[in-house]
Amino acid sequence: MQIAMIGLGRMGANMVRRLVRGGHHCVVYDLDAEAVAALAQEHGVEGASSLAELADKCERPRSLWLMVPAGSAVDATLDALGPHLSEGDIVVDGGNSYFKDDIRRAERLLERGVLYMDAGTSGGVWGLDRGYCLMVGGADEAFRQLEPALATLAPGTGDTERTPGRDGEADSSERGYLHCGPIGAGHFVKMVHNGIEYGLMQAYAEGLDILRGARGQEVPAGQRYDFDIARITEVWRRGSVVGSWLLDLTAAALLRDGDLQGYSGFVEDSGEGRWTIQTAVEEAVPADVLSAALYTRFRSRQDHTFAEKVLSAMRQQFGGHVEQSTA
Amino acid sequence: MQIAMIGLGRMGANMVRRLVRGGHHCVVYDLDAEAVAALAQEHGVEGASSLAELADKCERPRSLWLMVPAGSAVDATLDALGPHLSEGDIVVDGGNSYFKDDIRRAERLLERGVLYMDAGTSGGVWGLDRGYCLMVGGADEAFRQLEPALATLAPGTGDTERTPGRDGEADSSERGYLHCGPIGAGHFVKMVHNGIEYGLMQAYAEGLDILRGARGQEVPAGQRYDFDIARITEVWRRGSVVGSWLLDLTAAALLRDGDLQGYSGFVEDSGEGRWTIQTAVEEAVPADVLSAALYTRFRSRQDHTFAEKVLSAMRQQFGGHVEQSTA
Amino acid sequence: MQIAMIGLGRMGANMVRRLVRGGHHCVVYDLDAEAVAALAQEHGVEGASSLAELADKCERPRSLWLMVPAGSAVDATLDALGPHLSEGDIVVDGGNSYFKDDIRRAERLLERGVLYMDAGTSGGVWGLDRGYCLMVGGADEAFRQLEPALATLAPGTGDTERTPGRDGEADSSERGYLHCGPIGAGHFVKMVHNGIEYGLMQAYAEGLDILRGARGQEVPAGQRYDFDIARITEVWRRGSVVGSWLLDLTAAALLRDGDLQGYSGFVEDSGEGRWTIQTAVEEAVPADVLSAALYTRFRSRQDHTFAEKVLSAMRQQFGGHVEQSTA
Amino acid sequence: MQIAMIGLGRMGANMVRRLVRGGHHCVVYDLDAEAVAALAQEHGVEGASSLAELADKCERPRSLWLMVPAGSAVDATLDALGPHLSEGDIVVDGGNSYFKDDIRRAERLLERGVLYMDAGTSGGVWGLDRGYCLMVGGADEAFRQLEPALATLAPGTGDTERTPGRDGEADSSERGYLHCGPIGAGHFVKMVHNGIEYGLMQAYAEGLDILRGARGQEVPAGQRYDFDIARITEVWRRGSVVGSWLLDLTAAALLRDGDLQGYSGFVEDSGEGRWTIQTAVEEAVPADVLSAALYTRFRSRQDHTFAEKVLSAMRQQFGGHVEQSTA
Repeated sequence: MQIAMIGLGRMGANMVRRLVRGGHHCVVYDLDAEAVAALAQEHGVEGASSLAELADKCERPRSLWLMVPAGSAVDATLDALGPHLSEGDIVVDGGNSYFKDDIRRAERLLERGVLYMDAGTSGGVWGLDRGYCLMVGGADEAFRQLEPALATLAPGTGDTERTPGRDGEADSSERGYLHCGPIGAGHFVKMVHNGIEYGLMQAYAEGLDILRGARGQEVPAGQRYDFDIARITEVWRRGSVVGSWLLDLTAAALLRDGDLQGYSGFVEDSGEGRWTIQTAVEEAVPADVLSAALYTRFRSRQDHTFAEKVLSAMRQQFGGHVEQSTA
Repeated sequence: MQIAMIGLGRMGANMVRRLVRGGHHCVVYDLDAEAVAALAQEHGVEGASSLAELADKCERPRSLWLMVPAGSAVDATLDALGPHLSEGDIVVDGGNSYFKDDIRRAERLLERGVLYMDAGTSGGVWGLDRGYCLMVGGADEAFRQLEPALATLAPGTGDTERTPGRDGEADSSERGYLHCGPIGAGHFVKMVHNGIEYGLMQAYAEGLDILRGARGQEVPAGQRYDFDIARITEVWRRGSVVGSWLLDLTAAALLRDGDLQGYSGFVEDSGEGRWTIQTAVEEAVPADVLSAALYTRFRSRQDHTFAEKVLSAMRQQFGGHVEQSTA
Repeated sequence: MQIAMIGLGRMGANMVRRLVRGGHHCVVYDLDAEAVAALAQEHGVEGASSLAELADKCERPRSLWLMVPAGSAVDATLDALGPHLSEGDIVVDGGNSYFKDDIRRAERLLERGVLYMDAGTSGGVWGLDRGYCLMVGGADEAFRQLEPALATLAPGTGDTERTPGRDGEADSSERGYLHCGPIGAGHFVKMVHNGIEYGLMQAYAEGLDILRGARGQEVPAGQRYDFDIARITEVWRRGSVVGSWLLDLTAAALLRDGDLQGYSGFVEDSGEGRWTIQTAVEEAVPADVLSAALYTRFRSRQDHTFAEKVLSAMRQQFGGHVEQSTA
Repeated sequence: MQIAMIGLGRMGANMVRRLVRGGHHCVVYDLDAEAVAALAQEHGVEGASSLAELADKCERPRSLWLMVPAGSAVDATLDALGPHLSEGDIVVDGGNSYFKDDIRRAERLLERGVLYMDAGTSGGVWGLDRGYCLMVGGADEAFRQLEPALATLAPGTGDTERTPGRDGEADSSERGYLHCGPIGAGHFVKMVHNGIEYGLMQAYAEGLDILRGARGQEVPAGQRYDFDIARITEVWRRGSVVGSWLLDLTAAALLRDGDLQGYSGFVEDSGEGRWTIQTAVEEAVPADVLSAALYTRFRSRQDHTFAEKVLSAMRQQFGGHVEQSTA
């Protein structure tokens, strides 16, 4: 099928390539004309120099995929794109938008008969070859129209062992894409997915920190261990219940740089991790682990928190304690 | 090689079978004579009716593997076994012992020239066929003597993708077993492994709870979703960064029982999870996620905590709040 | 001064009484006519049977204080009240509203020249006699107009020891009320105040639970203690750094019911605790303790979480573990 | 009564002074002869140049109070002191020892008929004038013998409002000292007391950090507040449910240094905070808040944790994310 891609960053450009490999035809646009020119040289890709031209080059009903940064960039793009769209067109937001924004945006597009879909996309730099895990929200008819592209972008059944109890033809979830529900459902599932990701990452990180701490000053002399953490993560990759893709990646990083001296430990977070907590709070669901994982990232980006200074001040007031230097 | 197995529970018996399949010869003992008799009927297995007989049937230097419940059972077994051992024998504790107990036990055995090894063993009910991930502590010579058995018990390289950057012959960590360091190192690594396991499980559990919470009363009517959580875990198995063996198992459980109505949610914990936290505290390593995962299990086994009653009492005292019934 | 009170629940009615004791005159209204009639019998109180009548009975510029449940009740009251207000009138929302709602509401009222103030009010059932701690947001002129009433509602300097370094005339914060900033600032401060309250309560609750746990089965026989927790909280009230009003209240509750058998431990939460976490997340401020305190309350109201069932399911899949009954 | 004080640091010296003010006679010893000489010049204080001399100067049965650093210093002192003691003497450990050490030490002293008491002591630099809150463990007869000294050290009923429901003569808990139970009970209660203290401190610290965060970049422009945090803590001291001694101290610190620029936020922790968590884990009592409070302190003393570097490494492996500089 023909699909238009708006936003040719690392994710967008690779998704175009995977679609073309799968036999689809892509019309592409980006604010950066050079990005358009570069990608348009590849087989099966047609460039557009404006959203108007993009819309013009698409067969109707159009299928347009947005891969732009979440937030105001999505609104700006939809504002600019809207006048060029017609009834029956489908716009997919493949970025990491907030599900409540999806609902708002879908309502506005529906006023002119345009269908909106939200597609959470996981795959990182590996997606081009491995495929993208796709979590999609929106109307059934939009999902059906878009399904050929989704099936191509997704990993397919691959060599993942089949879940015991499943038989017959693989349903779409076994092929790596899923229609999760109405508008917002895809980004909701992707949001929670990333919240879980933070928790998993933090669980490994704390465990490895405890292994490393076994070398340390706080431990009595006779109980110290100097572990080879790279090899430990390697052995856990086989037969152990903590095996995972994240562990595979960790083992690879530790093999190269066993003490991780090349990293400072300044850890960004993105909207999904925050929205996950805010949603948990709205739902009254306890989310201790996911919250702690997020807060670690907040903390990692500060020299000292104001909270810690409050503790120091209290200690001095009560006990006459004077801080030791961190130096 | 010949290896003696003491303790024929689910883990011990299956390890004997995997050893025999790998061409080793096993002499086995258990407090339960029927367990011995049953296993001794299998090819390559020889039963013993007492620890004395077991020791007698072993070629020297003996290799003995304990697979008994952690704690006093290990001490009792070692007390009973000790007099039958000779210099150069090796005793492996394959259970989930505390690494500080290993150090103490190894010292006592060394007094009569017996070498001690601690082997953390992961694999659950899957180990017989998939192999056991083995984390071993103790002296180099003991590890070398035992290595043929360890290599058989372990999964081997299997079809796990090789970590980028590794080449040449696979080292033992790539075959699923690792000499982690001196006495206690194996159980230390297994302890942290289980601590991480708790954290990973809790991360998934909270995320799925937030998905489920989207149905709920606390959510405004227009923002509710009724997710098919079984299919969501299925789709995450392909191409997503949260893919893992634990996720595979979760998808399987949800396929059978989508609401998990067959489970009450009364969750046990074992020593390793607790020791992980206590070790983190000794090392002054922050372990927010691993602690929260453990505390969730504590909480799951109570109707209401005393802490919660304290909160209720304070609220009544201060604000005149009267509790609503949980009914 | 004359002040109108809208909402005669426990808080509103007592605030009227404290105002009247302080020499002010109150016009009062409630949806419940009986509440109006009852209070109007007291000295210095005038009842109104409708918002129109209330507005009519007030001298201009009016000072009106809302003490209605947070949320839609505030909007409904403002919608009904608006048409009866005139330029220069002041409306105070003394309930527990979200500071973002304050900003929205103030904008609408300002369209007709009405000034809005938000007043966070702490004091519970004790406020009538001890006074209410007041955290106020809004324009300077509104604060000045309202100050005589605020000063009466507040506790005054009382017998609280003066903070070292303060001298001269007590500023308003030393008398128990504070103009915290522009619109929303009062409720923001009250929100954080309640977030802190949850954290303080949970700190005491966990500590007392650990004291109680010393009796328990999990503790080795020689290390058990059977503490008199009521007397422990009593002794902490003198000379100890954990002394506080919450501790006073806890000691009183434990004196009456040492095992707190009269409480189930079903603990409600209100908006402020949730907004505190959501605000921390927006600000990227780590809030581990305040979050954990909130999640404990969520958890206390459930029999078992879905998350816990997920854990049970994973354990069975991996290890063949079967849950023990909670019974 | 006569009481011997061993250890004349800030706590020990002030306790001697308070005892003398109360009419008791003190014999004092410290490893630092100058500390002994200085204090011996004060009225009612007699110095000793060795433990032998100290023992010699005491009437029998002796009452000896140790105020030395917890840990090996206590054992060393007891080893040196032991030979000079006689049946019926009482040794009090007033420091912050681990309750399991108390049990061990008491057993050894009992071999020679010496009674051991453990006394948790709270009061900080304020204790000299306000009195010390004392939590005592040990035998009844030892408590009775020591009670005159305990009553003097404690704050007494003071002007603390009496707990409703208490009448008649004030029991000892109302006068600030309590016999908590057998050996170890005093230090157990003090341990939990300090665990609670950490939690309370962290609750305030996080709340104030959220107030301060309202100024910050992460907040949308129209929702920023620039709060006067010193005045906010001041207003909370009156009529608010978060009032406490810790809040009083915080208000005093903020009055002097509103941005706490004089503090780096490097926060020490002591044994009690750690033992509280380890005890909670042994008891299977959830302690989310107390743990998080401890971990914040651990984290405050590091530039970046190894855990954070693991997160950075994973992010780069999966998403190609490159860290931003912290600079």
